[in-house]
Amino acid sequence: MMNDTAHCTRVLARLRVVLVHTTHPGNIGAAARAMLTMGLEQLVLVRPAHFPHPDAVALAAGAARVLDTARVVATLAEALAGCALAVGLSGRPRAFAGRVVPVRAAMREAVAATTHGEVALVFGTEMSGLSNAELAQCALAAAIPANPAYASLNLAAAVQVAAYEARLAAGADAVWQAPRFPGASHDEIDGLHAHAERTLAALRFLDPARPRRLMPRLRRLFARAGLEHEEVNILRGILARIDELVARVGRER
Amino acid sequence: MMNDTAHCTRVLARLRVVLVHTTHPGNIGAAARAMLTMGLEQLVLVRPAHFPHPDAVALAAGAARVLDTARVVATLAEALAGCALAVGLSGRPRAFAGRVVPVRAAMREAVAATTHGEVALVFGTEMSGLSNAELAQCALAAAIPANPAYASLNLAAAVQVAAYEARLAAGADAVWQAPRFPGASHDEIDGLHAHAERTLAALRFLDPARPRRLMPRLRRLFARAGLEHEEVNILRGILARIDELVARVGRER
Repeated sequence: MMNDTAHCTRVLARLRVVLVHTTHPGNIGAAARAMLTMGLEQLVLVRPAHFPHPDAVALAAGAARVLDTARVVATLAEALAGCALAVGLSGRPRAFAGRVVPVRAAMREAVAATTHGEVALVFGTEMSGLSNAELAQCALAAAIPANPAYASLNLAAAVQVAAYEARLAAGADAVWQAPRFPGASHDEIDGLHAHAERTLAALRFLDPARPRRLMPRLRRLFARAGLEHEEVNILRGILARIDELVARVGRER
Repeated sequence: MMNDTAHCTRVLARLRVVLVHTTHPGNIGAAARAMLTMGLEQLVLVRPAHFPHPDAVALAAGAARVLDTARVVATLAEALAGCALAVGLSGRPRAFAGRVVPVRAAMREAVAATTHGEVALVFGTEMSGLSNAELAQCALAAAIPANPAYASLNLAAAVQVAAYEARLAAGADAVWQAPRFPGASHDEIDGLHAHAERTLAALRFLDPARPRRLMPRLRRLFARAGLEHEEVNILRGILARIDELVARVGRER
């Protein structure tokens, strides 16, 4: 029903998520899951405290293969080698930094840079994030807009938001749609409104001498809904049932 | 440095996160944390499996007050009572559904609807999401674009993405910025380029008879960087040091 285009898949495959000195292995697993839900698969771990670890596997749920193919390296420089661009995620204001942009704009730049090579999205350690020296190795700092009174996103939650924005920047923004049923034709809709007008007049809800705006309002409502063929049949069935009732009451009176 | 406007705060306060029959109390805590990072504070729990629970408190980190003020109700209808709009989050395609829109567009509608009252964002149980009957109680279905091959977002991750989009839709999209230092004046920049041209000629890197595009390229580079006053001083210091060296080599020759 929905398929990522080959182009989107190729773009997302060029994004490398780099987690620097992650303390809790569960967060590595949750980050892997967040990545894969958005189509990112390349994970690089710089000096993780514990990896591999069963907590990582447990939290990765169906995304264990992202952990299986993860690279473990000793330094951030190693993790960034060969990249066209490195984007450091940081919510912590600092006095000395280069360009800082919201994550939506940053992921657009990241996706654009994939035409030149791989792009790293770099996340710091849980408690304090990226150090100044680590952020300085990134050409661009990206920040997730957050509540100034409590801006503490969980590591995997930050990965989820960045990966989500990367996915949308790559153009893979399709979502599921319920199947459409056949629409009503113009004549069917016209027939419905004519029937409704007769029935409402017979019901004495509509006064043909002073119709006010009743019929235009009903037309507007049904136009907005985009009537289906089957729905016209249901509505005409209801009108026919009312017609019978009106006729019977007329006879009994 | 960044403050949410009173308007944004008011809009976000009108969003009500409804979690239906959550199985793991840790997910309730993680969802509370995700909410508060984006400025959402109203949590309603429909038949949670375990609540209150220490796992919820642990995962909420600094957002425990969202749990403290959470309402527990028996039915989704109770949770939705009084709302202007209910938006059901669902990644699961179904054959019979109303309007389905991507979460970004849905959160714009949700924020717009806060002018009429509170708006509910409804999330289903972990394994299967919202049932058809639950989704039918929502006027709008919202879906998070995801990898068709693995679309299984963790509950709190889905809350994080929806709350993030709600925050941006409310206009609270500010992020931190490093302080700007005083910019260089036009005359300072002009002086720098004149100095650089002399020094590069003395270095015999620039041939005044065949200057090519060297100076325009350097001007372009520094224009793009937006030079600061102090940076001009540093660069002129480097040029002066090169000038000394050129002069000494000239004397010694």
